Amino acid sequence: MTNVVDADTIFKELRTHSISEFFRKNSQMLGYSGKVRSLTTVVHEYSSNSLDACEEANILPEILVEVREIAEDKYSVKVKDNGPGIPTKIIGRVLATVLSGTKFHRYVQQRGQQGIGGSGCTLFSQITTGKPIHIKSGTTKNAYECDLTIDIKSNRPLITNMKDIDGSFKGLEIFGEFGDVKYESSDHGIFEYVRRTALSNPHASIKLIEPDGKENIFTRSVLELPKKPKITKPHPLGIGTNDLVEFAHMSESRKISSFLVDTFSRLSQNKVDELQALVSDVDFGMDPKKLAWSDAEKIVNAFRQVKWIVPDLDSLSTIGGGQIEATIKNILNPQFMSVVERRPKVFRGGIPFVVEAGIAYGGNAGKTTDTGARGVTLRFANKVPLLFDGSICAITTAINGIEWKRYGIKDFENEPISVMVNVSSVYVPYSGVGKQAVSQEPEIIDEIKLAVQDCARGLQRYMSGEKNRALHTSRYKIIMRYVSQLATNLNEITGIKKEEIEKQLKSLIDTRYRKLVEDEARNNAESDGEKSDYGDGEEGEG
Amino acid sequence: MTNVVDADTIFKELRTHSISEFFRKNSQMLGYSGKVRSLTTVVHEYSSNSLDACEEANILPEILVEVREIAEDKYSVKVKDNGPGIPTKIIGRVLATVLSGTKFHRYVQQRGQQGIGGSGCTLFSQITTGKPIHIKSGTTKNAYECDLTIDIKSNRPLITNMKDIDGSFKGLEIFGEFGDVKYESSDHGIFEYVRRTALSNPHASIKLIEPDGKENIFTRSVLELPKKPKITKPHPLGIGTNDLVEFAHMSESRKISSFLVDTFSRLSQNKVDELQALVSDVDFGMDPKKLAWSDAEKIVNAFRQVKWIVPDLDSLSTIGGGQIEATIKNILNPQFMSVVERRPKVFRGGIPFVVEAGIAYGGNAGKTTDTGARGVTLRFANKVPLLFDGSICAITTAINGIEWKRYGIKDFENEPISVMVNVSSVYVPYSGVGKQAVSQEPEIIDEIKLAVQDCARGLQRYMSGEKNRALHTSRYKIIMRYVSQLATNLNEITGIKKEEIEKQLKSLIDTRYRKLVEDEARNNAESDGEKSDYGDGEEGEG
Repeated sequence: MTNVVDADTIFKELRTHSISEFFRKNSQMLGYSGKVRSLTTVVHEYSSNSLDACEEANILPEILVEVREIAEDKYSVKVKDNGPGIPTKIIGRVLATVLSGTKFHRYVQQRGQQGIGGSGCTLFSQITTGKPIHIKSGTTKNAYECDLTIDIKSNRPLITNMKDIDGSFKGLEIFGEFGDVKYESSDHGIFEYVRRTALSNPHASIKLIEPDGKENIFTRSVLELPKKPKITKPHPLGIGTNDLVEFAHMSESRKISSFLVDTFSRLSQNKVDELQALVSDVDFGMDPKKLAWSDAEKIVNAFRQVKWIVPDLDSLSTIGGGQIEATIKNILNPQFMSVVERRPKVFRGGIPFVVEAGIAYGGNAGKTTDTGARGVTLRFANKVPLLFDGSICAITTAINGIEWKRYGIKDFENEPISVMVNVSSVYVPYSGVGKQAVSQEPEIIDEIKLAVQDCARGLQRYMSGEKNRALHTSRYKIIMRYVSQLATNLNEITGIKKEEIEKQLKSLIDTRYRKLVEDEARNNAESDGEKSDYGDGEEGEG
Repeated sequence: MTNVVDADTIFKELRTHSISEFFRKNSQMLGYSGKVRSLTTVVHEYSSNSLDACEEANILPEILVEVREIAEDKYSVKVKDNGPGIPTKIIGRVLATVLSGTKFHRYVQQRGQQGIGGSGCTLFSQITTGKPIHIKSGTTKNAYECDLTIDIKSNRPLITNMKDIDGSFKGLEIFGEFGDVKYESSDHGIFEYVRRTALSNPHASIKLIEPDGKENIFTRSVLELPKKPKITKPHPLGIGTNDLVEFAHMSESRKISSFLVDTFSRLSQNKVDELQALVSDVDFGMDPKKLAWSDAEKIVNAFRQVKWIVPDLDSLSTIGGGQIEATIKNILNPQFMSVVERRPKVFRGGIPFVVEAGIAYGGNAGKTTDTGARGVTLRFANKVPLLFDGSICAITTAINGIEWKRYGIKDFENEPISVMVNVSSVYVPYSGVGKQAVSQEPEIIDEIKLAVQDCARGLQRYMSGEKNRALHTSRYKIIMRYVSQLATNLNEITGIKKEEIEKQLKSLIDTRYRKLVEDEARNNAESDGEKSDYGDGEEGEG
């Protein structure tokens, strides 16, 4: 082996890089890959932040999204909300420091989780146009505007042109210019993103101004704010040994026993006794700061042996069955829909999540193409539409695993059907930093499948009702065609006037036919039970 | 709107998190999702680092991978190499600091790019077992062992039990224990990972000891080290405005003109003059530290208007056509193979990359299942096997876009065929931090498609030859069956002994048949031209 190079030479250029530098070089990992996707990602990040902020401030959101073409492959995006604004002294950390945020460490469900999205947009603006983003913010205390960029080497904010503005300005307005982007009316474009955001946020009013000047207004379907998710203590089943050790070492409690009660939800003194009996060799009187890995591991194993009350919904914020119905009716106006809101479940041992699903059929459901209607999957996580990376998403896997033929859908691809799934969790396991797909957790896939199958059973009844109606209609038409002949024959036998016989026969057949159709509808409605299926009964009588 | 919450309250818990904390919470983004995948990811990270280190040190790699089951869902992994080792004083930064590395900022192709993989394993070990990883390292200067963990809050290394060991120890040995993992013999398991690593690294010798004690030795197929990639200057076509500004502001050159010549490859004084003519309003005599975005943008646009010599291969390290052939023959022993090494191309305006492809048919190619052989895609980036996220990978997209019927493959899914693609680049655009898929860059997809189609044409000739041979063979057998009857008839007519006639007829038919088969083989060989197709000619005569 000649010319062997030694370790000192090889490692002489060792450096530690900032997270901003990393994402500057790998912006595709934040969703900035492809011109259309990149522009959608900007709107996705800003509008999610606006919805989160309004929800936290108890404000019904009014959001404006305005996209303008500046030059070829260069667009400006303005997103304005009526939210609480951002205090002056932290604006740089909120929108120009990667990994800064209020949400990362709290047990509360929000759209944003990571403290990456907003700062990622700032980074993307400066690396594609060299420009800062411009902010206007009005809180209850003051209003100001400024320009923001990130010092990439240090991941610190650079704030310029800070000045006060008229105090009547309320909320947050972000204006940025972005290069290597393109506006397109496709399944992956901003219009579709905003339309789906409206679908999953029926309490929001969103206005989108497209580059050609066209204004689209998505009015709210409901007037109440969604139930606000509570910051809760973590559930014992959601805890790994590493978490337990970390919580224990940070704890102010004096004993393991009180630490357990103070730190976790559903963990009473009775449960502590139950746990202590299972791990009698661990001293629950010990200072939690001294908890060793091996003892923590025993406690976590004990967590999995005792019975727990399931995590409650307080930390989870769903869209809500009634809201989904209102919004589907408002936006898709289908002939049939069925909505299911499942009970919360846990994945990875104990992280709570909840699945909501809806199926819409007919009307504006599905996607209209030149060759007819097509089936569409509408994926959401914490009410945020997921437009990309569908092929690696748990929602797609679940829906592809359903035998649609069983539910009266011969070919999902070629039916006017929309399947909507929203996965809500304090911690959604996204497959990537760009948060466009839910990773393939088996418990999540199973739960989605159950939810969609539940809706699909309603659809199946509707479809078979449709089939029966079609059958009745065709028999009705055949009989009607013979009525004239029959009336002539009966006239010959009975001597009653042909017109009279014809009229009576028609009336008889009509009544009988209507009864059949009504029975069908009633049967469907009864067997639906507590689930909310809604089939437009008038359709069959057309 | 009641109970509106103000911005100060909402943002009071704002925090900045370390990158270690981020990946502790989102370990699935590093590839730690699913028990099998997680264990494969550990071997993937350690063995890639070993191969990189050996290559840089000019050492033919000998790698040992040993996996042992410790408890249910808990395994230890040991990876030992004969590489250069790691100097004592930087071991903590190399393997216990996320985003530290030697490779991030250099223009040279290596398997690792980000300074995340090795430290990610340390993080995964400590969050699933609470244990440090144990290191033994021997450089040309000293040998030592130590334990490593990461202080997650600060992303700094914690080094314990450091001590000298016998100086005869050379190379690096890493031993770690990992929880929530599982060893499995599947397409996503460690055996398959190592087998594919051997396929794409014919110069490496790899021994895998499985948890059941079974030893698998993959011997090297070639004895030379691959051509070492050179650290080159970036090509002007690979540069964005942001890069140019950053390079300029860090430059020691006194003028823009000399800065350009010093910084970029293929950029001579002649090219500077050409560029200056295109952007006459930019002062090339100016201090590069003062280069403004707008001027930089003009220069980058000018870069795209002049003609450049394509980026050279020096910075790229391919497997090499001959090496691919040797390794395919060694590991798959197919009836037919065709290998193509394309010329370097650029994506995103100018980042150089090169595609190699190989098709193997028959023998051990494809995957053997209970229901027969199945087609297999072997994806590689910088010679590293990609086992996960195939559905979002540019390689899969390219291969799925090929009409296999045209090339004699009726149903790719059900043929004994392996298609191997390796994408090499100083900067591979991975779709995620876990580096398991190449993102969908149009230029890369097109280039892969061309490479595979090129190989497929060889396959098509082989398959049609096979078909002709099958035809000849069946005719031959039919004629042979009539020889006895014919000989009887001829004996009756001519009086010549039946045995004599039969012998002569058989000889005549045999000769004619062999000639047909040989012509076929020759025709195939001639039309193959410079590409290296290799069909096992003896097969047709069996």
